[in-house]
Amino acid sequence: MTILTPEARELLDSDALVHLVTLNDDGSPQLSCVWVGLDGDEIVSGHMLHRRKVRNVERDRRVVLSLEGRGTNEGGLREYLVVYGRARVQEGGAAKLLQQLAHVYLGPDAVFPPPGFDAPGYVLRITPERAGGVGPWASD
Amino acid sequence: MTILTPEARELLDSDALVHLVTLNDDGSPQLSCVWVGLDGDEIVSGHMLHRRKVRNVERDRRVVLSLEGRGTNEGGLREYLVVYGRARVQEGGAAKLLQQLAHVYLGPDAVFPPPGFDAPGYVLRITPERAGGVGPWASD
Repeated sequence: MTILTPEARELLDSDALVHLVTLNDDGSPQLSCVWVGLDGDEIVSGHMLHRRKVRNVERDRRVVLSLEGRGTNEGGLREYLVVYGRARVQEGGAAKLLQQLAHVYLGPDAVFPPPGFDAPGYVLRITPERAGGVGPWASD
Repeated sequence: MTILTPEARELLDSDALVHLVTLNDDGSPQLSCVWVGLDGDEIVSGHMLHRRKVRNVERDRRVVLSLEGRGTNEGGLREYLVVYGRARVQEGGAAKLLQQLAHVYLGPDAVFPPPGFDAPGYVLRITPERAGGVGPWASD
């Protein structure tokens, strides 16, 4: 069962940049923008290296992500979606996922990661638990 | 002394939506999009009510915010700015700041907050400590 509305799923499947927040070991928030896609009810992102974001999720599964929509609400405020969830790290599969996402984010001819960069990498798999923001999403 | 480049300041002064993260009392991250401006070297946002984001900063000053730029880097990745900092809460001044920001975010004729909504409110004042992301910002 997903808590995402069809409109939220459409935005997550689009080329909208995803602001993804994890928690550092001192409890401070860490943020970077990533590409994501949907795999069933999970939100997935690919990471070639065992860097900060992957290590953070291994220690603390709590994440939040946000994306800007394209419309505005009746008050003129721009739409954005926020999804709170729990992430887990899957080893391997990053290059294949990133290539799929590169077609969405960069274009049909994009090759990513660059040839020769063939580490198995990591996939973050995020289970949405709550959605909010401004727009036709599940209520906050 | 600011750690923000001129390009980062220009983006913070623009109508780019700001994804602002604070920390809840259970340590989980909280995110919503806000309007911000610059006041000297501080990043400022206005809040009419004593809600989650203001209460969070009163308890834990650590914040991170991100904005999407308009360009791409040499690899085709979209620019975005991340600013890590510490926030403090100033009581009062929210309506005046929000009216200034409404001119940037909504347009020259915008009236915000709505007439009659005249609580003193709160201003979050964020001191930038580190900037990163993709683009001509201070290095991460």
